[in-house]
Amino acid sequence: MPNIGEFDIIERYFKPLAGKEGLGLLDDAACLQPPDGQDLVVTKDMLAADVHFRTQDDPADIAWKALAVNVSDLVAKGAKPWLYFLGLGLTGQEDGEWLQSFAKGLGAAQKHLSIHLAGGDTIRSPGGLVLSVTAIGYCDKGQMLARSAAKIGDAIFATGTLGDAAFGLQQLKEKTCHDEDWGYLTQKYLRPTPPVSLGPRLKGLAHAAADISDGLIADLGHICKASHVGAKLFFDQIPMSKAALQQDATITELRMKAVTAGDDYELLFTAPRSQRAKIFTLCQELGLRISVIGAIIEGEGVSVVDENDNLISILQKGYMHFT
Amino acid sequence: MPNIGEFDIIERYFKPLAGKEGLGLLDDAACLQPPDGQDLVVTKDMLAADVHFRTQDDPADIAWKALAVNVSDLVAKGAKPWLYFLGLGLTGQEDGEWLQSFAKGLGAAQKHLSIHLAGGDTIRSPGGLVLSVTAIGYCDKGQMLARSAAKIGDAIFATGTLGDAAFGLQQLKEKTCHDEDWGYLTQKYLRPTPPVSLGPRLKGLAHAAADISDGLIADLGHICKASHVGAKLFFDQIPMSKAALQQDATITELRMKAVTAGDDYELLFTAPRSQRAKIFTLCQELGLRISVIGAIIEGEGVSVVDENDNLISILQKGYMHFT
Repeated sequence: MPNIGEFDIIERYFKPLAGKEGLGLLDDAACLQPPDGQDLVVTKDMLAADVHFRTQDDPADIAWKALAVNVSDLVAKGAKPWLYFLGLGLTGQEDGEWLQSFAKGLGAAQKHLSIHLAGGDTIRSPGGLVLSVTAIGYCDKGQMLARSAAKIGDAIFATGTLGDAAFGLQQLKEKTCHDEDWGYLTQKYLRPTPPVSLGPRLKGLAHAAADISDGLIADLGHICKASHVGAKLFFDQIPMSKAALQQDATITELRMKAVTAGDDYELLFTAPRSQRAKIFTLCQELGLRISVIGAIIEGEGVSVVDENDNLISILQKGYMHFT
Repeated sequence: MPNIGEFDIIERYFKPLAGKEGLGLLDDAACLQPPDGQDLVVTKDMLAADVHFRTQDDPADIAWKALAVNVSDLVAKGAKPWLYFLGLGLTGQEDGEWLQSFAKGLGAAQKHLSIHLAGGDTIRSPGGLVLSVTAIGYCDKGQMLARSAAKIGDAIFATGTLGDAAFGLQQLKEKTCHDEDWGYLTQKYLRPTPPVSLGPRLKGLAHAAADISDGLIADLGHICKASHVGAKLFFDQIPMSKAALQQDATITELRMKAVTAGDDYELLFTAPRSQRAKIFTLCQELGLRISVIGAIIEGEGVSVVDENDNLISILQKGYMHFT
């Protein structure tokens, strides 16, 4: 990265994205005045090249994804996104054009996701591009949606459609997509759009929540474990997009992928059946697709059942690092 | 890393370090209840293998350093450390013993630095070990020490001794140290100890502050730039340890290194001359060495002068990534 120093990078590309808490990105730290009567919700997700994104991806997409996966965790806690800190480990191969595009993608993402930059760190990471985002949101005191609050009898809801990101990644890898469906599925992989507007509106409606990042079965499993309950997943009710259903595989294979693949960043939550109508009305108002995909039951773990309530065996349960 | 999954690593090594805000590290986010009437101070420093530490370093030392450099920024803002989030990018070469040692070092550091774990993320980073810490502290509303508050006529203070970390690193690289001085200088490089107790006590005494991470001249330069002032640095007043002064070089060369080398994580601050006695008494009470090393003057940039007020030319001003 000839002739661009750390401070120049910050000044040129990141300062325009910073809110007042960032003190012009000239200090060692940011100073936050948390809103009165609110709890802060803090999450941190890291992304490494060739694990969470491909080195050759458009830097604007990499930036978008890094921010979106963090905001997704805030949404899943019922929090309103507020601000974020960006840790950027650059290999030194990134030039001004790369940085320009990265900052542009970050700017577009923070606008879409209602969050702004407050600080961070830019370092050299010789082994590969690494991004670390810490995102902070807030919610009314004691109202954070937890993984551990699912109750037996709850209906299980999911926003959007599942599996799109996985099919999009497959298309990118195999370059099998046709022009007409390139857009939709690959965009869902490259630029996830967690349902930011829904999180804070679930107060008083939802019990437990998590985002679908590791895969539906894995993430629902986390809720079950933390809540000491089991879950039944209705295999035929998994919401899938038209583009996903047009992929070359049987409907069972496609659904299998939709419930095991990660990276969708849709919202998964449980709520009493009695709230069903309110939740559907709310999602209609927000322009979000919403589906009931299962029920919380006694026991432990996630059982996938068909329309006749017969068990379906699922082998791969979700993405796991190091195994 | 055979047979250890991401969730096992968290459960086995990091859960014992977490405070209540971390919700047992079972959720996607932490829930913080900021203390009333306090501003939050947030900082984020990333560290990459073979840039900020050596891959072969003791994992306990790597953990200590990652936490200490972040707490150092909190101290420099006059904040009391509260909690931190750890992003850990593992190559996959780290085994159970490595992780055990890393967690042990982290535990020792968080105890020494009065801070605890609240959450984070563990990922695979194929290109090299990367750590990203976000540390949160607090201070009375509106009382954060800023880089931008230096006033003409202020005295410039520094805690501890300077250059030790650089000499320690040199010893590690050249393996030139003898048994008797191995301990001191290398420990200063491997396990920096920012003056945690001093930060919050500087309220009402200090104007501007920064930690000495990039090197004294560079960090003082940041204060000057942000405060729109200049600084005069008294070359003969730079505090140096006995071990540093015993290194094989002229006194001028040794001092040159002490004012340009980074990684000391001592505290640099400016305060009215009238506070000198109070500051010395306070530091004596806290068991900290403190020195007056210069003065804030009109103009811009840092001038280094000898005991006769003659300018000394310094070439390398501090560590800079990418240049």
